Order: sequence, then structure tokens, then C-alpha cells
Amino acid sequence: MIQKLPLASTSPVLIVGSIAYDSIITPKETREYILGGAASYSALATSYYAPVQLVGIVGNDFEDQHINRFKTHGIDLEGLETDPDNKTFFWKARYHENFNQRETLETDLNAFEHFKPAIPKAYEDTSYVMLGNIGPDLQLHVLDQLKRKCFVLADTIELWIDIMRPKLLELIKRINLFVIDKTEAEMLTGETNTILSGHKLREMGPEIVIIKKGEHGALLFHDEGLFAIPAFPVTGIKDPTGAGDAFAGALMGYLAAAQSTEFETIKKAMAYATATASVAIEAFSSDAFSDSTAKIIDQRVGELISMTRL
Amino acid sequence: MIQKLPLASTSPVLIVGSIAYDSIITPKETREYILGGAASYSALATSYYAPVQLVGIVGNDFEDQHINRFKTHGIDLEGLETDPDNKTFFWKARYHENFNQRETLETDLNAFEHFKPAIPKAYEDTSYVMLGNIGPDLQLHVLDQLKRKCFVLADTIELWIDIMRPKLLELIKRINLFVIDKTEAEMLTGETNTILSGHKLREMGPEIVIIKKGEHGALLFHDEGLFAIPAFPVTGIKDPTGAGDAFAGALMGYLAAAQSTEFETIKKAMAYATATASVAIEAFSSDAFSDSTAKIIDQRVGELISMTRL
Repeated sequence: MIQKLPLASTSPVLIVGSIAYDSIITPKETREYILGGAASYSALATSYYAPVQLVGIVGNDFEDQHINRFKTHGIDLEGLETDPDNKTFFWKARYHENFNQRETLETDLNAFEHFKPAIPKAYEDTSYVMLGNIGPDLQLHVLDQLKRKCFVLADTIELWIDIMRPKLLELIKRINLFVIDKTEAEMLTGETNTILSGHKLREMGPEIVIIKKGEHGALLFHDEGLFAIPAFPVTGIKDPTGAGDAFAGALMGYLAAAQSTEFETIKKAMAYATATASVAIEAFSSDAFSDSTAKIIDQRVGELISMTRL
Repeated sequence: MIQKLPLASTSPVLIVGSIAYDSIITPKETREYILGGAASYSALATSYYAPVQLVGIVGNDFEDQHINRFKTHGIDLEGLETDPDNKTFFWKARYHENFNQRETLETDLNAFEHFKPAIPKAYEDTSYVMLGNIGPDLQLHVLDQLKRKCFVLADTIELWIDIMRPKLLELIKRINLFVIDKTEAEMLTGETNTILSGHKLREMGPEIVIIKKGEHGALLFHDEGLFAIPAFPVTGIKDPTGAGDAFAGALMGYLAAAQSTEFETIKKAMAYATATASVAIEAFSSDAFSDSTAKIIDQRVGELISMTRL
């Protein structure tokens, strides 16, 4: 079992999203058929802070080693479906110099094509729900199954803004915390100034908005004010895939562990999320998440505090 | 006379650089023939913190109103030359949507073409020297005239990296603080990771390096560690020209006022510099610098502290 952070609690986080096999080409190296998907990254990241209930689907080629990987992190797999007739969702992408741009080379939905997330009865009491990047129709379908008032985080990608905007707008009216990339925020709001775009997103529904800016950190828009955090200064990026998912997962894990969603708690959660994401990108897939990652996260949060203290 | 910041001292800052007339086209508005130039922006920004000694050249068309502008800010003009045979340096540029990109449409060096900065005797005792963006050959020529050990800040632009790299490399070996834009830092070091590029710049000479990232703030590289500060959240940008010059000017002004160049002082100076630059971009030219700007700067520094506090 992995070592958790000192603050880790028993209040679980329910995570719904994609589980995939990725083939990743970077300027220096290529890796084929490695564990990927937003929910995988988020679940592993969350696991350092709180128990995880994973809802997703894999195909008939999903390897035992990856099931065991989740189990080592104490992730509850009652909500993990296996499609016996199809392969696991597959995604292939290439990163360009400096990892600033990436290009999708192949997407095979496979088992994911007919995925309809079903929340097991045992998860119905969970108060922290993370809707990883899947279609907003599926995210709404999860919300409809929730029996009690939850704190809900949702993430999205460009694709859904393009092809499912009305559903996405419906979704964000019903969530608490919207985590979105800077470019996606601009697309969704039509506002190129990031500050204005964050304010506009809050007017569209979610009381809390976090805009992720990659190497430039993240911005929190909250009733009590604005908060800015830089990225952790990583010098050895291997594979940025999943950085945003690890960020969101760690964030929710921290909130569940702290049993609070106050402004001050979210700020601290962002520091832990930033540190966790910085670990994720130092190896392909989620290979950098090891038994002793909690210690590294704690240390990096300390460095973040000192490098921002005025 | 303008109102200075409470910490303002009597230790002057010597500023060398360009004074210009600019024509600026933004997506919303166009202004012709307005006061510009790196040294103008820096000098006006510095003036809220410390007395300024300005070394530069203007042409026969330089208006009294702009001389008076400098005087209102208490700027010493003994080092300001007037070329009776030529016009003032002229620059015309267009900003694109979101102000992220700009395009130079015209550059007429005019009086600036044969400028050879001469440091008046009265300035020889000054300890804080700012070499605004001019050719590194001219910046070196200023250094050669300094009679005592000074704290020297230098700025540069892409052009000099392109056409005068050896001179620039010679210059940065002789300065204390190098302020450079992210893209320029990448060009100069050949390193696309900003953190590595900052470390590399320090190895090239200057003990302190600040990389400016525009809307994403700035990074300080120092023997005692790394420091990151976000930009002030400006929502009404009118004209970003001179933001970097105002930043550097305020920074030097703060250091002169604090009579210290320690790590902790530089961090605070960056907060004041960030606030000062945020004011500069809210109007064309330096029109946003008014009698009461000191109060706004103080208030924005407070906001910066609160929006970064973990």
C-alpha cells in the first residue's frame, strides 16, 4: 500500500472518467500502450489524500498489472466495469518541442463508446464527487444519480465546448468547482483576458472556478477573492499527459481530507494539487506516483510556500 | 510635484535609455505621437520611489509639455541631450487581439542614431544604475564611465540578441541584475524551459536574473532561491507599451529607496514593480502615472500580497 499524506482522511472521493491506454510520442522518447485516461491520473493522485471510488470502463485487454496498480493505491473498484467485447479506450498523441503543443494522432473509443456511468449503491453516501473529462451528457447522468448534496468538481476539454456546448452549459450550472484550462476558458466565454474569463465563468454557474495555465500555474476565482499560484519549477518534464487530471484529483483529495471547501482550504489544496501534478509529469504514464510520493509532495508544498512568500 | 511612496528616499537612480515619440495602434484605439521610450517609462515609474537622473537624447521636436512632465516628477534632466538637427526617435507599432502580439510598423532612429550617452559629473556618485534597452555597446559605454561600485540593472530586447550577441554577452558579465523577457531569455540561452533558462542566464554572469512573463507575472532567480510573483489582475488594458520598462524602473526605485539589494528586498521590489507596471498599461503612453499613483501602487501591493498568501 502507498503511504498517504499526514492529513489523509477516511472520507472518500468518487471519481468518474476515462481509463485508457495511451501511446505517447515526445521529442525525446516514445512509449506505447501505457496506462492513461483522466480518471486513472486523478484516482492515483487522490489516493495520497483520501480513499477513492472509481467509476469507469475498461476493455478485454486491460491488464491485471493495472488493476493491481489501482489496488495498491487502495482504490475501490466496485464501480469499474469491464467490457468483454471491446478493447480499452486508446489514445495516441505527439508532443512538440518544449511540450507546449500536442497533436492527437489517434483516438479509438472502443469500450468507452457505449459507456454509461452507473454509480454503485455503496457510493451513494459519498460527499466529494469529481467528474473527470468525459462528455457533459455523461457527467449530467452521474449528477442525476447522486442521492445527497455533494461537493462536485468537473473538468472538461475543447472537444465538448465544440460539439456539446449546450450540455456543458447545463452541467456547469449544477457543479461547485469548475476546473478548466486557460485556452478552453477563453473558448467557452469568448473572453481573451483570463481574469475576465474567470469572472464570466462564475456568472455561468459554478461558485468556484480554477483556471489552469500549465507552466504558469493556476488562478482561483472565488467569492472571497482571487488567488494565484505558480507551477512548481520542474526542469525534467518527461510526459505532461494527465497533469491537469492529477491536479484536480489531488485538489479533491485534499478537500475531502480537510473536510472543508472554504477559500483558505481551497488555496492550500491548490498548493498540494500543484505539487502532485509536478510529480506526475516527471515520468511517462503515472509511473512517477510511487509508494513514497507523499513525502515528495509535502516537501514541494514547502518549496511552493517559500517561493511565493512576500 | 507627484506624491511619492512612503518609503521613498533621497538616494537617486541613474537611468539611461531611449526617449521617443510613439504611434500606437491597438484593436480599439490609435494614438499618434505620444511620449514613449524605455527611459521615459522607467524614469516616471522610478520617480515614485527615488530621485531620477535621466541620461538620453531627444530631437528638435521634443515638446515642452514633455520636459515639464519629467520635471513634475522631479526628474533631473542635466543628462538629457537635445539634438538641434534631428527629430526625436520615432516608433510605430500595432497590437493584435488580446495584446499578446505586436508588430513594429516603423522605426526612425533620428536623434538617437548617433547617441553616445555621456554621464554628467554630478551623477558620478550614484549607486543605482539602470541600463534601459539600448544597444549593449552603449550600455557598456555607460559602465565604462562609472567611477564607483554600483548596483547595475540591464534590460535588453530581441534585436540586440540577434545582431549584437557578443557585446550583450560581454555586458551581462558586468551587471548585477538582468531583467529579460521569457522569449528573449529562451533566444539567448537556447533553453525552452524557463526555469533552466533562468539558471543558465545566471551562469552567464549576472548574480540576479528576473524573467518577465507578461500576464503570467515574473520569476526571480537568486542565489538564495527562486521567487514567483503573478501579474496584477488588470482587466482594462489600454496599451501594454512600456510595462517592462515601468517594472524595471519601479524595481530599481524600490531598491534605492530601501538601500538594500538583499533577496527579501528584491522580492518586495518585484511586488511594487508589478503594481507599478499594472498602472502603466491602463492608459496610453505614461498617462496613467499621475500625482496620486503612489496610493494606487500601495493598494495593489496589498492585493498582490493577499492574492498570493498561502
